[in-house]
Parts: sequence; C-alpha cells; structure tokens
Amino acid sequence: MRKVVTFGEIMMRLSPPLNYRLVQTDGLDITYGGGEANVSASLARMGQPTAHITCFPDNELGHAAVGSFQRYGVDMSHTVFSGARLGLYFLEVGASVRASKIVYDRAGSSFSTLDPAAFNWEKIFQNVAWFHWTGITPAISAEAAEACQQAITTARRMGVTVSADVNYRRNLWQYGKKAQEVMPDLVAGCDVVVCAENDAEDLFSIVPEQGAEDSFTSMSNQLMQRFPNIRQVITTRRETISASHNRLTGVLYNGQSRIETPTYDMNPIIDRIGGGDAFMAGFIYGSLNYTKADEALSCGVAASVLKHTIPGDVNLATVAEVEEVMRGNTSGRLLR
Amino acid sequence: MRKVVTFGEIMMRLSPPLNYRLVQTDGLDITYGGGEANVSASLARMGQPTAHITCFPDNELGHAAVGSFQRYGVDMSHTVFSGARLGLYFLEVGASVRASKIVYDRAGSSFSTLDPAAFNWEKIFQNVAWFHWTGITPAISAEAAEACQQAITTARRMGVTVSADVNYRRNLWQYGKKAQEVMPDLVAGCDVVVCAENDAEDLFSIVPEQGAEDSFTSMSNQLMQRFPNIRQVITTRRETISASHNRLTGVLYNGQSRIETPTYDMNPIIDRIGGGDAFMAGFIYGSLNYTKADEALSCGVAASVLKHTIPGDVNLATVAEVEEVMRGNTSGRLLR
Amino acid sequence: MRKVVTFGEIMMRLSPPLNYRLVQTDGLDITYGGGEANVSASLARMGQPTAHITCFPDNELGHAAVGSFQRYGVDMSHTVFSGARLGLYFLEVGASVRASKIVYDRAGSSFSTLDPAAFNWEKIFQNVAWFHWTGITPAISAEAAEACQQAITTARRMGVTVSADVNYRRNLWQYGKKAQEVMPDLVAGCDVVVCAENDAEDLFSIVPEQGAEDSFTSMSNQLMQRFPNIRQVITTRRETISASHNRLTGVLYNGQSRIETPTYDMNPIIDRIGGGDAFMAGFIYGSLNYTKADEALSCGVAASVLKHTIPGDVNLATVAEVEEVMRGNTSGRLLR
Amino acid sequence: MRKVVTFGEIMMRLSPPLNYRLVQTDGLDITYGGGEANVSASLARMGQPTAHITCFPDNELGHAAVGSFQRYGVDMSHTVFSGARLGLYFLEVGASVRASKIVYDRAGSSFSTLDPAAFNWEKIFQNVAWFHWTGITPAISAEAAEACQQAITTARRMGVTVSADVNYRRNLWQYGKKAQEVMPDLVAGCDVVVCAENDAEDLFSIVPEQGAEDSFTSMSNQLMQRFPNIRQVITTRRETISASHNRLTGVLYNGQSRIETPTYDMNPIIDRIGGGDAFMAGFIYGSLNYTKADEALSCGVAASVLKHTIPGDVNLATVAEVEEVMRGNTSGRLLR
Amino acid sequence: MRKVVTFGEIMMRLSPPLNYRLVQTDGLDITYGGGEANVSASLARMGQPTAHITCFPDNELGHAAVGSFQRYGVDMSHTVFSGARLGLYFLEVGASVRASKIVYDRAGSSFSTLDPAAFNWEKIFQNVAWFHWTGITPAISAEAAEACQQAITTARRMGVTVSADVNYRRNLWQYGKKAQEVMPDLVAGCDVVVCAENDAEDLFSIVPEQGAEDSFTSMSNQLMQRFPNIRQVITTRRETISASHNRLTGVLYNGQSRIETPTYDMNPIIDRIGGGDAFMAGFIYGSLNYTKADEALSCGVAASVLKHTIPGDVNLATVAEVEEVMRGNTSGRLLR
Amino acid sequence: MRKVVTFGEIMMRLSPPLNYRLVQTDGLDITYGGGEANVSASLARMGQPTAHITCFPDNELGHAAVGSFQRYGVDMSHTVFSGARLGLYFLEVGASVRASKIVYDRAGSSFSTLDPAAFNWEKIFQNVAWFHWTGITPAISAEAAEACQQAITTARRMGVTVSADVNYRRNLWQYGKKAQEVMPDLVAGCDVVVCAENDAEDLFSIVPEQGAEDSFTSMSNQLMQRFPNIRQVITTRRETISASHNRLTGVLYNGQSRIETPTYDMNPIIDRIGGGDAFMAGFIYGSLNYTKADEALSCGVAASVLKHTIPGDVNLATVAEVEEVMRGNTSGRLLR
Repeated sequence: MRKVVTFGEIMMRLSPPLNYRLVQTDGLDITYGGGEANVSASLARMGQPTAHITCFPDNELGHAAVGSFQRYGVDMSHTVFSGARLGLYFLEVGASVRASKIVYDRAGSSFSTLDPAAFNWEKIFQNVAWFHWTGITPAISAEAAEACQQAITTARRMGVTVSADVNYRRNLWQYGKKAQEVMPDLVAGCDVVVCAENDAEDLFSIVPEQGAEDSFTSMSNQLMQRFPNIRQVITTRRETISASHNRLTGVLYNGQSRIETPTYDMNPIIDRIGGGDAFMAGFIYGSLNYTKADEALSCGVAASVLKHTIPGDVNLATVAEVEEVMRGNTSGRLLR
Repeated sequence: MRKVVTFGEIMMRLSPPLNYRLVQTDGLDITYGGGEANVSASLARMGQPTAHITCFPDNELGHAAVGSFQRYGVDMSHTVFSGARLGLYFLEVGASVRASKIVYDRAGSSFSTLDPAAFNWEKIFQNVAWFHWTGITPAISAEAAEACQQAITTARRMGVTVSADVNYRRNLWQYGKKAQEVMPDLVAGCDVVVCAENDAEDLFSIVPEQGAEDSFTSMSNQLMQRFPNIRQVITTRRETISASHNRLTGVLYNGQSRIETPTYDMNPIIDRIGGGDAFMAGFIYGSLNYTKADEALSCGVAASVLKHTIPGDVNLATVAEVEEVMRGNTSGRLLR
Repeated sequence: MRKVVTFGEIMMRLSPPLNYRLVQTDGLDITYGGGEANVSASLARMGQPTAHITCFPDNELGHAAVGSFQRYGVDMSHTVFSGARLGLYFLEVGASVRASKIVYDRAGSSFSTLDPAAFNWEKIFQNVAWFHWTGITPAISAEAAEACQQAITTARRMGVTVSADVNYRRNLWQYGKKAQEVMPDLVAGCDVVVCAENDAEDLFSIVPEQGAEDSFTSMSNQLMQRFPNIRQVITTRRETISASHNRLTGVLYNGQSRIETPTYDMNPIIDRIGGGDAFMAGFIYGSLNYTKADEALSCGVAASVLKHTIPGDVNLATVAEVEEVMRGNTSGRLLR
Repeated sequence: MRKVVTFGEIMMRLSPPLNYRLVQTDGLDITYGGGEANVSASLARMGQPTAHITCFPDNELGHAAVGSFQRYGVDMSHTVFSGARLGLYFLEVGASVRASKIVYDRAGSSFSTLDPAAFNWEKIFQNVAWFHWTGITPAISAEAAEACQQAITTARRMGVTVSADVNYRRNLWQYGKKAQEVMPDLVAGCDVVVCAENDAEDLFSIVPEQGAEDSFTSMSNQLMQRFPNIRQVITTRRETISASHNRLTGVLYNGQSRIETPTYDMNPIIDRIGGGDAFMAGFIYGSLNYTKADEALSCGVAASVLKHTIPGDVNLATVAEVEEVMRGNTSGRLLR
Repeated sequence: MRKVVTFGEIMMRLSPPLNYRLVQTDGLDITYGGGEANVSASLARMGQPTAHITCFPDNELGHAAVGSFQRYGVDMSHTVFSGARLGLYFLEVGASVRASKIVYDRAGSSFSTLDPAAFNWEKIFQNVAWFHWTGITPAISAEAAEACQQAITTARRMGVTVSADVNYRRNLWQYGKKAQEVMPDLVAGCDVVVCAENDAEDLFSIVPEQGAEDSFTSMSNQLMQRFPNIRQVITTRRETISASHNRLTGVLYNGQSRIETPTYDMNPIIDRIGGGDAFMAGFIYGSLNYTKADEALSCGVAASVLKHTIPGDVNLATVAEVEEVMRGNTSGRLLR
Repeated sequence: MRKVVTFGEIMMRLSPPLNYRLVQTDGLDITYGGGEANVSASLARMGQPTAHITCFPDNELGHAAVGSFQRYGVDMSHTVFSGARLGLYFLEVGASVRASKIVYDRAGSSFSTLDPAAFNWEKIFQNVAWFHWTGITPAISAEAAEACQQAITTARRMGVTVSADVNYRRNLWQYGKKAQEVMPDLVAGCDVVVCAENDAEDLFSIVPEQGAEDSFTSMSNQLMQRFPNIRQVITTRRETISASHNRLTGVLYNGQSRIETPTYDMNPIIDRIGGGDAFMAGFIYGSLNYTKADEALSCGVAASVLKHTIPGDVNLATVAEVEEVMRGNTSGRLLR
C-alpha cells in the first residue's frame, strides 16, 4: 500500500477521568494527539503505511509521545529532538448542556521553535503517495510555517498528492503574521482541502454568491478558481444537539458536482476530539483504496462517526468496522 | 460582594464507581455534601463569599469534611467540633429505568447532637446579606431545630434576608416532633421559600383552590397570607423520563405575577444529587447580583441544569458558564 | 422456596474499562459469567435457592470463578475440578454506532473436556423444582452434550421442570456434530423453551406458515407438535436503535394464546451481556412464585430491562426492583 | 472435614488507597472483616468447612457483607437480619514510623442490638467440631455477651471444642459492664485461649510469679488453675521494628511444656489487619488436621506471616502455601 | 496562635502511579506543591494559621491550585491572578537503586512574570509572626527576586521573624543574574536560615576552617559574622542508602552551641518530595510553640520523617503524631 | 548502530493490582512480554535498533501485542499472523515470604502452531549483528524448535553472532521430544550462552569436576569443549532473601578467565519478571558498544538491577541510567 505522510505538532492531552472538572480531580488520563498525527495513526490502524514528521524535546515526555504513535504503527523515525518542552492541553469532558473545554499550554513548545533545516523533505517523501497538513501548523510560528511551505513545495515537485485541513483558529496566530498573509501560498499547493464556508470567508474573503443554489458549491467554485491545483473541496456539517449528541454529514465538491453523505446520529458521544482528523484519514484511505469520490467521502464520515465512540484523539476503528458503517449498518448490534 | 451564610449537616457520600451496585463493588468514590453546604460551595465557585455553619466529630473524617468545603472557598472557620460521628450516605447511581438509590447512615451524627449554644449567631451574621436553611435541619433533632430557630431569629433581627428550601422528608422526622409542629414557626421568618404544591399540603395543609387557573399561584398566595414575610415562592418542575434523562423548569411567584423559565433537557444526567441546591445557589446569586427576579430564577435553573453534568454534590460551574446557558446556549459545543 | 439448578460453562470475562479498545488499554475489568450460571445468580439475588453445575480447572482461576458465584449465593458445591484451563472471553464495550465485540478464547477449557460420569444427577436434582440449560452447552463438546442429555433425562424422570434457551450459535459447533443432529433429542425433554423464529428455522427447519396471522404463534405451534413436552415457547424482541439504545418486548405462546408485554426503552444501556439470561431468570422466578403466565413473562422482561443497567453478566436487581418495573414504574426517580 | 463455627460482628472496612490519608483521599477501598469471621474465611480458604454467625441490617450493605464472606466459601445461611446499620471502620495504612490508624464507627450497629433469642445454637452446632469467639463480642453490648454465653454453653454441652481470643480492648466496653465481670464466665467454657500476659493481668488480675523462669508459663499455669477446662494457652510475640517491618513468634503452653516457633521476619508488611485471626485459623486448622501441638502452632504462625502479605482482613493463603512456610521455605522465590 | 506567611511558586505535580515510568503510563496522579507553600500547608495541618502569597494564571488550573491549598486551611486570599500558565513538574518515583526523577516545565509561568507591585506586603504582614521564603524564588526571575526583597524588607521593618531555606539550584538561575549576586542581600534580612556546608560554599564562598572540630559550626559562625541578623543556622543530614531507604538527622547552631537530633531510619520512603519543607514547617511550629531550640529542631526532624510516609508534597501529619515521634515512638504500632 | 534480532513467543501478562490475589481481584493490569522480546524492547529503549520475530493470532489481542512492542521501538514488521490464540499468563505478585506465582495459559497459542516456512530468515538477518533466542522457544512445539534451528543456521551462515539463554523449564517440554535431545544441536550454533551449573547438568549432563576450584569455570570449560563455537558463558547468581529483597551478581567465563561483578542489593523489588532478559539485553548492548567483556557483564547486571525497579516485563531504563549504576552510583538520590 502507498505511504501517507503528515506534519504537525503532537501534544500531551491531560483530562480528568469521566466528566470530572479540573478543580476537583486528583488524577488525569493522558494520551497524545495532534490534528495531523491523528490522521497518520488512524490510517495506520486501517492498514495504510504512514509516517509523521514532528519535533519533540529530548526528554521523557518527548520519548513517551514518540512511543504513543509508534504503538499504532506510525513511522516516527524522522522525529527531530530539539527545543525545550512538549506542548500540552488540558481537556474537561462535558456532557449534555455543558461543553467540553480545552485549556492549551503549548507556548514555547519544541515544535514552535523547530529549525526548518532539520527536515530532509526529499528523503521523507521518497515512495510517498500523499502529504497532509493543517492550518494549525503555520499558525504556531514562523519556523513552522516555513517548514510547512518547504514540505508542500517538495511534495508537489515529487508528485505527492497534497491535502490540507485549513482549520482557521484566530487565537493561535500570535507570531506577527496573519493567517490571511500566510495561508494562500500554502493552500495554492494543495490538491484537496477541507474548508467550510466560514473558513473560506475568514481566510480568503470568499463569500458564497448571493442567490447561489448551494453556498458550499459557490464557495468551492471560487476557491478552485483562486487555487487551480485544488481538485476537491470537502467538509463535514455538524449539528450540535448537545455535548453528548451530534449529527454529522459529509459534503464534497469536485468542480462539477456536489456529493453529500447520509446524516449520522452520534449519541452518546464518547470522545469528540479528533473527529475531524478521523474524517480526513477516512477520506485519504478511501481516495487511495476505492475508485469513486463518493466512497472516499463516505469512508471519511463513517470513520469520523466511529471515532466519536472511541476514547483518545485517534480513531482506532478497523477498515472492516468503517466499511460496515459505510454499508449502512449503524445498529451497534453485539458481535460475537 | 455580599456574604451568604448556610447552616446544616454535611455528610460523607460514598458511591460505587460508575453504575456498579453496592453488592458488587470493592471501592467507593467519596465526596462530602449537604443540602445547605452545597449552596455555599456553589455560590463560592461563582465568586460569592460564603460561610457554612455545621458540627463535626473531631476526628480525621470531620477534618476531611472541613477541607472538602474549604477547597471550594467556603469559610468553615465557624465549625463546631463535638459529638461522635460523621453522618454518611451510600449512593448507588442508577441509569435508564433503574433509579439511583440512597442508603442513609446518619443516626447519632455529630450534627444531630449539636449544642445550640455553641453557635454565636450574632458574630456569624456580621456583614452578611443572606441566610439559607432547609427543612432537613429541623428534621434531624430537637437541638438542630432549636439552633435553626435561633439562627433565623437572629438573622431577621440583623436585617439578613432569610431563605428556606422547605424540603419535606417524612422519614427524617424521628425525634418526637412532627414537621407540622416545627416548620411553621421557622418558615414564618423567611423572605424566600422553595416550596412545591405537595410540600405546602404536607406541611401546612395548604391546597390549591379548586378551579384555580394555576395551582402554584394559588398555593403561593395562601402561603404568603399565612406567612407575611415571604416575598417570593419558587420551585422547579422536574419531568422524569428516566434516571438518565430529566427535564427541568423553574417557577416563581412574587405575590403579583408568576414567572416560568424555558424547559431544559438534561440528557444524559451525570450526577443528579445537589440539583436542587444548585438551583437555590443560582437563585441567591441572581438575587444578589442581577436586578430582576426573572434573571435570578433563570440563573437558578441554568445553574441546576449545569449541576446535573458535574460529579459530586456541588455545582462547580462558573458564572460565565451559567450565564452562557441563561443566554440560551445549550448546544454544548466544544470550547477551545 | 423451591430450588433451581443450571448447568453450563462459566468463563472469565475481561473487558477494558469504559469504552476503551483492547489495542489501547493497560487494564481489564474482570467478572465471571456464563449463560446458565447467570440465570442461577440472578435467581439467587431474587431470593430463589439455586445451584450451578460446572467444571473448572483446579487452579487460582477456577477457585476465583467459584467464589464469584458463591458471592451472590449460588450453591457451587457440586463443582467438578478437572481439565486444563478456564474459558475466557474478551469484551470491548461499544457505544452509539459501534457494536460491542467479543473475542472468545474458550477452546480446550475444562468444561469442554468434562467427564460426563463426574456428575451425579440423581443427587443434584434432589428437592429441585426446575432445571435450566442452553444450546451453548451441547455445542461445546460431545462430552458436554452427553452430560446435558443425562441431566435432562434424569430431571424429567425425577419430575423436575426442564427449560432451555435454544440459543443457536453456528460458530460454536466445532466437534464434528451438527446442532441439527444433537438439539432435537435434548429439546424433546423440555417443558419451556426460549426460541425465536430464526432459531426454529436454523435448528429444526420449522418455518412459520405462509399467510399465518402471527409468525411466532405459527412457529410455536409447529414446535409444540414436534416436541409434545413443550408447554410454553417464549422469546424477546429486541429492537436495536444503536449499541446504546435498544427496545425490548417479551412474547409467550402457551399452545392456546399469545401474550406480549409492553415495549421498554433501554437508554442508555450500561451492560448488554446477560440480558437474555436475566429474562430467563425472571421468567423462572415468575413461574415459580406468581400464578399467571403473563406475570412470569412480565417478570422476565422487567428483570432483563434492569439487567441492562447493571455492570457484569449477572442481574443484581432485587425482587422489589423488578416488581416496581412490572408495575410500570420506569421513571428512574431517585429513591431516598 | 469437620466444621468450624465462629460468632461475631462483621464490619465494612474503608481505607484510602495505598498510604493516602483520609484528609486527602477521594476514594476508599472497601472490604469486610471481623475478628471471628476472618477466622472462618481463612479456614474456608484452607478447605475447612465453616459457618459464621452474625447479625446484619437488611439493606444493601448487609447483603454485600454476606456476599463478601460467601465468596470465600463461608456458610452465611444463619445470618440474622435485624437492626439499623452495619458497623464500619476507617483504616489509614501507615508505613515506616507512621502507624496505621483505625477510626471505628460501629456504635448502634445491628450486631450490637441483636436479639440473643434469634440464634438457634442447637441447630447451628450440629455436626460441628470447633467453636471460636473473641473478647470483642461480649464487649459490644449486653445482648452480644448474652448470645456469646449461650453459644459457649450449648457448644460445651454438645461436645464442641471451644476457643477464644480474649483480646481485651478497654475502649470497647461501653454498655455498663466491665470486661472483668463478664469475661471469666465465658472463658471458663473454653478449651483453648489466646491470651498474652498483659491480657491476663487486665482481665483476670493474673500476674506471672516473681522470679518465674518464663512469664508466659507462669501466667498460663495460673490461668489453667482458675479455668480448668483450658487445655492450651497460645499467643504470638510481635516485635515492631516499624509499621512496615515486624517479627513474629508463636508460643504455646499445654500445662506441661512450652513450645515456641522460630521467629519470622515480615518485611514489608502489606496488610497487618487480621494477622491475629489468621494465626487462630491456622492453629485451628492444625489442631484438626495434624497430630501434634507444635505443628498446629507452627501452622498458626505460618498462616499469620502469610496474611501480612495479603490485602484485606482475610488470609487467602492455601494450605499448600502455609505448609511451604512451615517447612521453612521463606525465600519467596518465584513459582512458575 | 500566631500567623505564618510564605511566598513562592506553586506548581502542578504530575506523576505516574506507583513506580511506573512516563514512557509507559496512561494516567498521572496530580497534586500541587511548592517549597514555600508546602511549609504553610504543613503548618496549617498542625493548627498554625498560615497564608501563602503567590501568583497564578486566571484559568481552571490556577483555581484548582488555589483550592488544593485552601483544602488544608491555608489562606489563599492574597493570590494574584496574572500571567500565562501554571508551572508544572513531572515526577517519576524511583525505588531501590533507581532514583526518583523530576522533569520541570515551569518556564514562562505566571509566577515568573509576576508584577512585584501587585503585592501589598504591609497588609499581608499585619498580625504576622513569621515570614518564610526559599532560594528558589529569587532564582526564577528578576521580578520574583524583587518581590522577595520587598517582602523581606517589609517583614523586618514590621518585626516579623524571617527565615529562609537558601536551597541553591544552579540550573534555575537563568535570567541573567547569578545567585551569588542576589542572595546575600536577601539572606542579610534573615533571622533563621537552612544552610548546609555546600550551599554556604556555592553561594557565599564560605568554607569551614581547616582543622575545625565541626564543619557545620565553623561554616555557621562565618555565616553569622557575614550576616549578623542570623540567629540560628539549621540543616538536615540525609544518608541515602537507596531511593527507598534514607536516614535523617537534624543539626542546629545558635552562635554558641551545636545541637543534633537522633538519626531516624526512613524505610520504606513513600514520598520523598517536600521532606525539607516539612522539616522547616516543624521547626517553625516548634519555634513558635515550644520554649527550647532543641525541641524546635526535634519537631522539624520528626515532621520531616513523617512526611516521607505520606503521598504528596505536603506533610499531613498532626501535631499529636509529630510529638509521638519526638517522644521517640517510631515503632509504627497499629493505633485503634 | 547495529541491529539485534530476537525470536520467541509473546504472551499477554495479566496481574491483579498491587499484591492482590486472583481470588479477590476485580481487575487485572495487563502488559505483554516474552523472554526474547523483552530483550529486544530493553535494547530498543537503550537506543539499539532491534526487531522481534514472532507469530500472533489475527485478532484484537494479537494486534494489541504488536502495538505494545512497537511502542518501545521494536520493529514488529516481520510478525506472522496465524493460529488461534494469544498465549497468556496470570501473575500474582508476592511480597516478603509469599512468592510471586505464575499460572500459564499458553497451550494451543499461535506461536506454538507456527509454520516454520513462514519466516524468511535470509531477509530478516540482513544487516543484523546479533541474534538471540532462549530455551523456551524449542520447548513450546516441534514447529517452534524447527524454526529456531533454521534461524540459528541462517544466522551463523550470514555471520551474525548468536546467543542463547538456555533456560531449562522441564514442565514446558510437552510435545514428545526431550530438551536433552533438542537443545544440543541448537546450542552448538551459539557464540554466547547464559547457562548456570544446574542447567548444564540437566540439559547436557555436565557436572563441575570434583575438587574444581570454581564450579562455574569447570562447567563452562566442559561446555566449551562440547560446543566449540561458544566463546562466552555467562550467568547471574541470585540470592533470595525474600520475595521483596534479592541480591544479584553477574559471572562470565571466556575460556581463559572468570569475571564477577559486585553484588547488588535489590530492595524493595518492584517487578521481578524480566530480570534475566534485562541482563541479557544489557550484556548484548555492552558487547556491541563497549570494548571489554567486564563492561558488558557489568552493563548486563546494572540493567537487570534497574529492571527490578520498573513495572512490566521490559527494562525501560536508559543507557544513561544503566551507566550510572555501572559507575557504582546505587544511592537512588533524587534527580532534579
């Protein structure tokens, strides 16, 4: 099978058990995650070879993070060890009307102070089919944005498919440049982007035409005109009934037509974090292993729906389980 | 901010983890709670200064209970140490059709054998805006009822607002007096009471007039005639779909008009204990910090709804979280 | 009260905590269960005297399994200690669209290599009212099937009521005989059978008559003609909305009329394993302690619904709790 | 094998995990224990049939306590359900210089309010070889002392060997009678007593003769003169280096000679509670199954030493393990 | 009783359970600690009123840290909320030859960016008897050193006794000044210092005179000459047999004579962190409540020895427990 | 660095937490281990590239086991998925006089039914420096022995150093051949063997010469004569004071001289399993990275001593930690 490479920060995630709050807990469950690494790990669990590229401090926490992704079969051999600390985030898991809440503690992380020259992208992309990055990486620091740019350029040149989840988080952009200055050049190198209407407006000032039949189609068309390398624009629609109950639908536009998956009920949600990353992993898996775009989209949504039932950032569902949901079996009937 | 004082027993709560039953568990999660102390702790977490008045045995359990409420910022410096034991209750947490179940083990507790003379109410109520008690306290023992009476009388005399959750529990009244003999004198000293129709009938033989447009209004009017100090009668309506799914609505009558909040869906319920106390805390917070009664009521219900998502007896929601629900945001969307 | 005897394998059940998956867990919760022993334990918890007959290895695991059922009051004094190992099964608990999943590891278990001569059925059935077995036992090995046959024959001769849950699991039949060859002789000795339409077709090639008003009645009539000892055919209908939300209805045919219970909503499901065994236990309890078949059926369904709220294989609900559900109280309102 | 019966209170034991203190813990490990029931459970684990006689409240806690001892094979079928509450004790586990600490909460327990007429001793002692009680039982209440007296009298009359651990705890005697008034009549009915010099002095004013070669022999001789039924006096010497490190030696006097076992090093101590009960159980096992008194004593000490390595009140060592230590193998070498 | 004030950073401490390593753990036990706050909390548990002065981020972690010290009775009402993050440290607990290991993650903490003007020392020191700081505080940042200087100056002026644990950690001094430049001015304001020979050499270039009878006396004399306000120099001698087994002795010099406590065996060590802080707390307690210096020293060592048996940074031993060890009772005999 | 390959079965290890026994536990800690894989994982943690060759069932347990060793950096890409089940072993952790106890449940495992043809040893040994196997592998089945023979032969031919821990376990040899028939041919291909006097006698009837100055030297000389490829014979001496306290010494004979390391005290032992494998890993690491045999031996013993302080089968000590012990620093002093 063909190899997928991802690039981005991995953080330690610390959360009180069950629905406890930080002010009352005496213990924290830990796991490691990051928007791009989650894609690699989910793909690895589906049997796709993957490597994740990142930077860790050379201490027990950095090595623990490496081990955490090796466990699921991700090639972590390109990891650069430098810098001072591992990024962290604290997560309180909500329920019903109470939202889950994240306290980030990632300033000054090893990833944010990475040296772009430390990554040999030519070597990394040998025999690689697909490269995925997200809008979080260039938000972290000028160095991270620079490394991301080099990765995209090299990948394109070497014929690797490039995808991005544009994922605009205003608070993250703290190093002096705006997303609006940085992102266009990066997105220009992409074949596939995850982008919703609000992201397109915020990042590229692209607004669906008034009176357009479908806002997503309109936005996507404009996006493709601006960035001609883009072949597919995808996104998920999430209806939030409560912290415990969401509904999810996948949407894709390929320049000609718009595809939409059925809507899935997710109730109860066991762990919402990484749901978008599981979608991307499923979509990449489907793009590499199925023949049609609607299967890839369906694979992405099914993977995401399953992710919401699994603790941790990573979708640990197997291909067989994802395909069962793709076939419409959402009954959850006991398997002996 | 103005200080709130509460008075009542605090017990150790012991419950098997998750939905385990007592006959099968090898461990118990513990926390400490009491109908009145929960109000103080919830208010403290909302930033309101509070003190709780109670009586503990002078052993490791009594000191652990003190620490448990100090942790959330309640002033426990008035605690009296006397008597033989800490009251306990065992809680099995139900789900779906199975009800949660409490086994009380509070007979002979330090609080039930308190010496009314041990509390210096004059000193306790200095610079205090509000005093809250519940119908559980006078049910425990003659001494507790006596202390409660002294507290109410002193509070009134010192211009402190007095509220009560009348909370009639027939089984608790074991010391020779009936609630119907004791409660009227106590309620007579109150400005605000939590009282539903069945409580009014059981305690004061007040029955809504036949043909009354609204039973709560009718009952409240009669209650206010009997006890002219009462300015507001409040309660919550709880619709019980299952142990895991309830609906909640707040109601208030102020002598002129009846206010009702929207109905909130609570699904799943993480911890139902202390839901009424969170309502009272929210209402007191609102009464002291907002200008209108409907805001106070709304604050009470929003606080209670959030409490149902938090483990333990105490509502650990912040003002910001409560106000978010008051504004109608019950989507539980992830906060980064 | 009259004694009930059950016969079958008990396995250690190992499951990751909460909804964790096996590939990510560092701990397993353990309990012990088996389709027949679960019936005995549920009955014992309801106050009915029971004994379970089985075979364990003479090591720490076998003795732990004995203790686990003694804990709930089952007489385990007839246990035969022989053979090499305790059967195991690993359980991943699903949620929402993700099914719970069992990995069996029972090959070569002590029970599968039991010596039929090791059981003195004459002695075991002294003062016994009811004997229950399931279709799993004869599926395990020729020896187990032989012992089951002897038990049924002896029970019948001694006037003990015999019931079976026919429970056809194709994968289990690995020892060279087919269920279709073995089961008819065993079922012939039964007074009561749990059998759904698909079981009847798979095992006995009995298909509801075309155009029959009710498929269950039609199937049951044919079953009773084939096996004249059968007085009652029962089953449950399970509607599977998701792994977390099922609906359950009980059905009974007694040769003349068909009885159906109300449908119960089970949401959320805490532990689905043993739901069928709890139904059987409730039905046996009802048959022995109530006067009417519809009460027995209702007792079975109520017990099963409660089981779904309790962790582990065994229904730890009391008679009082079961009867509360039978009376229609499914509100799950807090009990103090 | 011959049956042993014990009589006494069983309490729930609640202890913070590891070496945590009560003021800092959010969870408690629970187990059930009592000085006499621990003897029955230890013997049952050694294969000796046993029954324990006690009184519990008819609530979930009482039934959990029953199950806890049934699990290890103790016949609990004589349990009387009456009274208000289960006795409790909280245990902080010390280490090094910090002592383990018990907070009792047993006042008003079901056992303390038992009705002596509720026990049919004639029936209980059918086919019984040995009856064991301790000095804790008559200390709890007049009713408990009365029941104990009846049990001893009946046992003697029916030819059952009677043993007692005199175990004087001054604080326990709160019901108006002194140990010194009550104990002599009870001890008079015993064949075997556990009694150290300080107990003999406190309870019976027996002081070793000045200049006696061995204080234990001197005390024992006087005790046997006072209570002629006594055939054996036994005790253990515990040298307390720290909370984590003790040394243990067993001593026996049979009216003629004094036997002493080797001294065993116990380091680290995993759980010290129940060490004396394990000694008694081992001694009873040895008395019933070996031919010589020194073997019985050795069995008692070996059992006690093993108990100190096992969490909970009950010695879960098997006969094979105890006999290995009796043979002098204390190396703790890994067994595969 | 007279009040004690401490000033310094509080960090969240995160450690794998038991002796697990960071690379293998999926959970972390958390507690909060800091060299100065530990002194306040230990004193509060001994009944001494204390306040701790610090700076936290205004997020859930900061509030959790406040609660953690309020729980043990420390007045946290002076806490300043500012800055970006809570300092953290990860702790692996060793055993035998494996050392415990700390990974600090405190750069950029709220405390390190505190504003010295945010503390009103005049108000803080009203009715205060003793102020304690350590050499860690001025090492963190210029701002922290500045605030420390102001605190010492104000305390001196207001007649408050000042103590310091000089505690030189080379790695901590990263902000451009050396300890050797900063510490002398701060130590000059102290009445009592904890200082060992190596600290005196590293910080003040004070070396025991060659041929001196006692190196500690010689060093102390020179220290007192340099800093005439110092009345007492104290320290502990720790003999490290293994990570699980240490020996501890206290030493004091008062300008005239040298006092030494007995040496205590600590085996096993449950939690070594905070041992020095417990010593200081015990010494302050003794200085304020006993009449003689040797009692104060003895109190410090006894408190420290007990701390080593208690999980967490804080010594949760009571005065009664400390005084028992002071009396020489280190047997750890079970207390009922 | 040069690559090391190991070959052998990996089992799931299930143990009650702390010192609990199987009959009392409701949970099991799990980890994965095997005598040869532990060597690979320990080496990987020391930075040495390693691959482990084994066979797993293609189910969730097999994949979990793969992940468990990938986590520590072992290349598991050669894993063969075939057969029915994962081998298991249950471990009770002893203390003091109570030995730790293993219950194996490995019959019929995937490894025991492996197909020797499934391993491509030529490919596996490309660029490999060292191959290690143990006497457990050929004991499991004829197929395993056959595969082991092929591996050794191929390794030798390709110039790979071959080592074996002869590790004779009589109970394991159940498939019809004796160790004495099988082992000589396998050992003949080895350069280095771990072999103690009793192993040499049991397996090869080699007995130290009477009157020999040193039994190990005498045995080793005979072994080297019989198997001329052997260059080094090594072993450890373990003195077993108790289950919690052992002493360890390493011994090596190289045909000329005998080397012995200092003796290390291991007290307390946290986890004894894998101690021998850590020794082997340390020895291989030392042989490949240091220049002298005594350094390699010292590295092995230091690694083993550290392993006894770490939970799980695998030595998670780093090279820096091992070298610290090699330098004689066994004080366990806290590292900040």
